[in-house]
Amino acid sequence: MDLEFEHNTLGQRVLFAPGKAAEKLEAEVSRRGAHSIMLIASKAEIEIALGVSSAIEVALTYTDVAPHVPVEKAEKARAAAAEAGTDLLVCVGGGSTTGLAKAIALTSGLPIVAVPTTYAGSEATNVWGMTEASRKTTGVDDVVLPQTIIYDAELTYSLPAGLSMASGLNALAHCIDSMWAPGSDPINQALATEGIRALSQGLPRIKADPRDRKGREQALYGAYLSAVAFAAAGSGMHHKICHVLGGAYNLPHAETHAAVLPHVLAFNAPAAPEAAARIAAAFGAEAAVDGLNALQEAIDAPRALRDYGLAETSILEAVQLILPVVPPTNPRSVTQDALRQLLESAWAGTVPIR
Amino acid sequence: MDLEFEHNTLGQRVLFAPGKAAEKLEAEVSRRGAHSIMLIASKAEIEIALGVSSAIEVALTYTDVAPHVPVEKAEKARAAAAEAGTDLLVCVGGGSTTGLAKAIALTSGLPIVAVPTTYAGSEATNVWGMTEASRKTTGVDDVVLPQTIIYDAELTYSLPAGLSMASGLNALAHCIDSMWAPGSDPINQALATEGIRALSQGLPRIKADPRDRKGREQALYGAYLSAVAFAAAGSGMHHKICHVLGGAYNLPHAETHAAVLPHVLAFNAPAAPEAAARIAAAFGAEAAVDGLNALQEAIDAPRALRDYGLAETSILEAVQLILPVVPPTNPRSVTQDALRQLLESAWAGTVPIR
Repeated sequence: MDLEFEHNTLGQRVLFAPGKAAEKLEAEVSRRGAHSIMLIASKAEIEIALGVSSAIEVALTYTDVAPHVPVEKAEKARAAAAEAGTDLLVCVGGGSTTGLAKAIALTSGLPIVAVPTTYAGSEATNVWGMTEASRKTTGVDDVVLPQTIIYDAELTYSLPAGLSMASGLNALAHCIDSMWAPGSDPINQALATEGIRALSQGLPRIKADPRDRKGREQALYGAYLSAVAFAAAGSGMHHKICHVLGGAYNLPHAETHAAVLPHVLAFNAPAAPEAAARIAAAFGAEAAVDGLNALQEAIDAPRALRDYGLAETSILEAVQLILPVVPPTNPRSVTQDALRQLLESAWAGTVPIR
Repeated sequence: MDLEFEHNTLGQRVLFAPGKAAEKLEAEVSRRGAHSIMLIASKAEIEIALGVSSAIEVALTYTDVAPHVPVEKAEKARAAAAEAGTDLLVCVGGGSTTGLAKAIALTSGLPIVAVPTTYAGSEATNVWGMTEASRKTTGVDDVVLPQTIIYDAELTYSLPAGLSMASGLNALAHCIDSMWAPGSDPINQALATEGIRALSQGLPRIKADPRDRKGREQALYGAYLSAVAFAAAGSGMHHKICHVLGGAYNLPHAETHAAVLPHVLAFNAPAAPEAAARIAAAFGAEAAVDGLNALQEAIDAPRALRDYGLAETSILEAVQLILPVVPPTNPRSVTQDALRQLLESAWAGTVPIR
């Protein structure tokens, strides 16, 4: 098969600097000669944000952040940015905070310096999203891509271990799923492989000790790579399944990912030997499935969808909902029977063997 | 040790499309709505360039390309671009051709679509260079970074097997050296690892058959990754040694790289176990040194500097010239004795053992 693909790299300055967010932010502001900074953070994270911005002069501190960026909140924030004569947006927080900064950048063209505190990954993509009357609109525009990211692993100490595992498993799932997602290419696969390596090293350390610095560093690094890989490759079979299950049966996000991922990997691995070899190497395991099993065991990951609200009687219906949305790029063709077996295994929580 | 680094990604659209350069170029020109295209190619490659541009309208075909971009040639080309009302530069060729396009972009801000025919890698960097009275000036400016690269492996069929091996080994050396070069970071290491993998698969196939399509695809892909890694990481110990040897003793570029690389790798590997593990995995070998040895054997790479003009009596002097320029970031400290032994081995062409 020809080596044919299109790969778009997004130009960003990415700083990893554990314990040094304030210092790096000051240097970045001075490098840019910014004069009127709008600091964006949720009320819950304002303490962290004030610490990060302690060495810079902030013209406007803005905390009216809400999940999924409601349009009216975006418009208020845009007006506030304009009124303050803002020339640089600094957002400190997770996906909702970065999302609000992006909404301002979308119409103003203002540059963003993002300081993430979670593994959401929005800071590494050019995707924006807003909601109006609970309808979500998303778009892609390079103007919303943060020009600089400052990753300080110490800021993620405030992320509880449970949420870290959930969010880390979601990032891991994006890395693995990006091996066969529609926009997959070998460069993304190499970055996703590095992401799997980092997450599989970091998550067990955080599980053992939520303030393990090396664990936090590796997990944050892996989450960044996961976002880069996902931004380019899009959703593969795994995320399509989880999206349907979450929407139709109101299953919890993280647990669904954890329970489904091993079975998608076991299903696809034989048909994607190169991807499987990359994944195995990233886990330091003999086979991809073994590596994921060992990690799931180490972090005591959720295993069975039946423990999280999926009724056995819903499986056949779920198969019908999922079949049409499995990407045609999936390396192994997905029959009704195969999908039923896969969901039954995830429902029961069996450990897949290769 | 903290995971602390700065990584700058350069935003580019990178297309790999074997056999499809003309088609992809047409799509790219139409996507951009360019009206007045300046096509740049050396006289030696004009046939290839005309083929690549067969589906687009070219306003100006420019062939006054010379190595190292002499300033007066750059100025003539800039004047010609302005006079033709150029709104897009399309360069088809190797480093000199891309270099001329960059010189025009530097002062005009015109976008570049690069269609490489060699493994030079200039198309993936924001570095420009010009020479005046045989003095070279270089600089870094994002405006010279080609916005789109179209890699068509069939265009490299015209690169003779010998030159492909030489140029491919140089790319491989950049991948390996970027593991410990001053600007090294784990993201670059992951990309360089992928580059080693691709080059080690591609080069033996080209050696066996210069028109092996898969070999050409892998080598071109590896050369791109090598350029990306080098642009960020800079030169490590290996390239500093080769630079000194080439300049002081007029040794041939490619052969010097081939003879020196195994010994730098063998020297650094024990002090850089993570890098060595990445390199080993990329070669699919048990140890990094073994992998490189096997590749060198498969492509019958030059082994001994004494075969290429280095006198044994020059070794002590070379040690004195090289010692001060070895980057302080090198994972293993380089003593006079160690460097002498390394050069003696490269001079004699011994096969290093781990």
